[in-house]
Order: sequence, then structure tokens, then C-alpha cells
Amino acid sequence: MSDWSAQQYLKFEDERSRAARDLLAQVPYAAPRDVVDLGCGPGNSTELLVRRWPQARISGVDSSDDMLRQARERLPQVSFAKADLAQWSPPSGIDVLFANAVFQWVPDHIAHLKRLAAALDDSGVLAVQMPDNLDEPSHALMRATAADGPWAAQIARAAAARDPLPAPEVYYDALKPLSARVDIWHTVYNHVLDGPAAIVEWVKGTGLRPFLDPLDEAMRAAFLAAYTERIAEAYPPCADGKVLLRFPRLFVVAVR
Amino acid sequence: MSDWSAQQYLKFEDERSRAARDLLAQVPYAAPRDVVDLGCGPGNSTELLVRRWPQARISGVDSSDDMLRQARERLPQVSFAKADLAQWSPPSGIDVLFANAVFQWVPDHIAHLKRLAAALDDSGVLAVQMPDNLDEPSHALMRATAADGPWAAQIARAAAARDPLPAPEVYYDALKPLSARVDIWHTVYNHVLDGPAAIVEWVKGTGLRPFLDPLDEAMRAAFLAAYTERIAEAYPPCADGKVLLRFPRLFVVAVR
Repeated sequence: MSDWSAQQYLKFEDERSRAARDLLAQVPYAAPRDVVDLGCGPGNSTELLVRRWPQARISGVDSSDDMLRQARERLPQVSFAKADLAQWSPPSGIDVLFANAVFQWVPDHIAHLKRLAAALDDSGVLAVQMPDNLDEPSHALMRATAADGPWAAQIARAAAARDPLPAPEVYYDALKPLSARVDIWHTVYNHVLDGPAAIVEWVKGTGLRPFLDPLDEAMRAAFLAAYTERIAEAYPPCADGKVLLRFPRLFVVAVR
Repeated sequence: MSDWSAQQYLKFEDERSRAARDLLAQVPYAAPRDVVDLGCGPGNSTELLVRRWPQARISGVDSSDDMLRQARERLPQVSFAKADLAQWSPPSGIDVLFANAVFQWVPDHIAHLKRLAAALDDSGVLAVQMPDNLDEPSHALMRATAADGPWAAQIARAAAARDPLPAPEVYYDALKPLSARVDIWHTVYNHVLDGPAAIVEWVKGTGLRPFLDPLDEAMRAAFLAAYTERIAEAYPPCADGKVLLRFPRLFVVAVR
């Protein structure tokens, strides 16, 4: 593979940052001065912003001290601040608000997206990506497993941690009065994983947490075993033994 | 089917080329020497390839004289050839085969994708995008209208012009034995259009053609009126009077 750019190739290895890259690719801003990464996590999305716009002032906001610590270590030149997005407002003059995989956790997020878009100057961009996978087997089977076992009472409210996303028309109607242009799309990725256990590992870091956190160790192990069994049925292996984890995500790019 | 109308197709060029740009963004090849645009149409996708890889030898293949004439006018420096993709084989040493919105018209297209992937050298890339919208109202209502009117007998076979696409797993199993890596995803665009008539204009250039071509002028007008009425019901206006045309597309990128 002599002709390959190693950096380019490595970019495509990182399944989890693909959505952030896809979102960034649709932000039509050549040279913004001020960019904020909302829900920056450990700084991997922030790093994409720094690489695309090396001349811009880029900052990051997150509600987790642990995430912010990691982000500061990774990008010492960037300023990071702790805030809850439901409370946070942008300073004036921000050109791009970038929110990768965070607003699904903010109750009544459409009201907050409107508030943030309204705070942008003309030609400012609000770019948002959220997983839209609550109806996928990966997530429906969390709820089915939760309802059907000795843990049922304990985690009855776990499914309420995230609301299903409304239809694209709802985002369009909310943001169009504030925007010159609103672009909304879904991408449904198919992540190639080693098998059912790898699917469980994938969701353990995010969607499965509200189901596992309230349980003690023994109950947690039993829940995971029951869930993994259902996942194995729902994701049959491909010819090479791998499984495809179907993963829909919603993207919204509003230009003031 | 009669020759494609390049002019009708280009009416929505910006919107239509988004998918080609999204496909190209996922081709992990820094500096290919030989690139072929399969089903190049009027050359808009070819132009994207020329812009990304100005040093490469780029050529285009299409089955329509009208499309090829426009492509040659647009890109005089590129060589274009007339061929049927079901018959065409790549010369040796091709680095990228780019096929935007064409294989949905080729019967048994998976066999042809396998044949083309097999013809690539190591690290060659086969990149394919196809509309996957036969279950959308825009297309289901073509079939419903066709079945319910004085034109029914005449266009009974129009719906057979395109087969529904199989699931991502089918492409994965077909191409993985030939590939180091196969990436498959859907993107569901929401094109913002002026109203039901604009949706009809959009599909006139492509999906509606097999339904309209066999009809005489009066019958065609009556069919269009009946179809437009159904479209207006299926795509209610947003708050600003626009409609969102939901448009799912399948993407496959196989790296040898």
C-alpha cells in the first residue's frame, strides 16, 4: 500500500469519530474566528476542529471533570470550561457551535438548540449530531431485558434516560425561522464488530449505563448475560463471522 | 428507456451532487493514478474527481450519448467512452472505480460489483452509491398511481425497471472475500423543496421515466396529475410552506 497516506488511512480506522468527521464536513465555514465544541468529552472532536481551522480560537465545554481533564491533557493550547449545556450560553461573536453526540442527553433539547442558534450572529453555524438508535435491536433489547428479570423493579426507569428523537420536520420547523438554511439528514452506519460480545462492549460505555448502574455486581452479570443472549439472536454473523452493528445518527446543520 | 435528459437531471445539481461528494469523502486514497467514473452522466461527478485528484488520469463511462456529449463539453481534458456497465471491464491498474447513482439500473448488480472489485489491484477502491428509495412515498406512489388508471396495462412493467436493494449484509458477504475492508452505510437526506410539484420535477429526471416514457402526451399529463395529487397528500408542508423530500441512499466502499 505504498501510495497510501498513513494519516488518511488511520482516520478511517476510528469508527467512533466517523460521525464527528461527517458532521464537520458539512459545516460550510471557510475561516471562522471563534468555535466552541459543546460536550467536547475527552477532546477527540475538539482535535478535529483544531485540525480543520488551525487559525481559529477554539474552546470546549463539558459537564464532566474527568472528560475535561483528559481534554486539557490532549490539547493544552485549547481553553476548556465546565458547564451544563442546559444553562450555558455562548459569548457574542461565536461563528461555529459544534455539538457531537451530546444533545440526546439534554432534556427538551430542541428548545436549547433554538436558544443557541438565536445567539449566533449572521452566517454563524450550529452543527449537531445525535445517535437516533433507540429503536434498534441494540437498544430495544435493553428495555426488553430490563422488563423481564428479577432486576425489573430496580431499573424500571432506566429507559427514560433518553427520549426518542422527533422527526426531521420538527427540527426544520424549530430552526428555520432562525436560519438562512437548515440541512437535516440521518446516516445509518454499519460498524463491523467481532461478534455479539463486541456489540455489548460498544453500548456498555453509553446506552447501557443507566441499566447497569443501579444493579449490584451479581445482578449486573446476570443482566449482561441475558442481554447478550438476545443480542446474539438479533445480530446473526456474516459469512466471515463478523456482525454489523446498524447505528443510525441524526445530523442538523443550521446556518444563521 | 429512451435517452436520459441531461437538462432535467441537472435541475437539482447541487442537491444531487451531495451524495457524490459524501461518497468521495470516504474513498481513502491520497494519490491514485487511474480513476474511472462509472455512469458519469453529464460529468458533474467526474468534475469532483478531477478537483480532488488533479494529478490523476481520470476517465468516464456512460451508456447515454446525450450525457456523454455534455460531459465532454464540460470537461474537454477528460476522456469519455460509451459502454454498458454490464459488459464493461476495467483495464488493469485502475486505482479507483467510482460509481455514483448508476448500479441501481444494472440487473444483478452485485455480481457486477464483485466482478469489478476482483479486477482491481491490491489497495484499489470500489466506491458505489445507489438510491435506496423504492419504499419511500415518492416511489411507492408511482406504482400505486400506475396500477390505478387507464394507463395500467401500458405501464404494468415500469416498476420492474429497478429492483429493491438487498440488506447491507448481502453487500458485505459479496465483497468481503475480495476486500481488506468493506464499509457500508445509508444516508437519508431531506431535500428542502418548494412543494409537491418540485418533488414531481425531481423524480421526472430519474425514477418516473419508466412510467412516463410509454405513455402518449395526454395520458402522461393525466398520470402526472394523479401522481402529483397523491404526492401532495404524502408530503405535507412545513411551517414555511416547503416540503422535505426524504431520500435514502446506500453507500458501499470496498478496499482491495
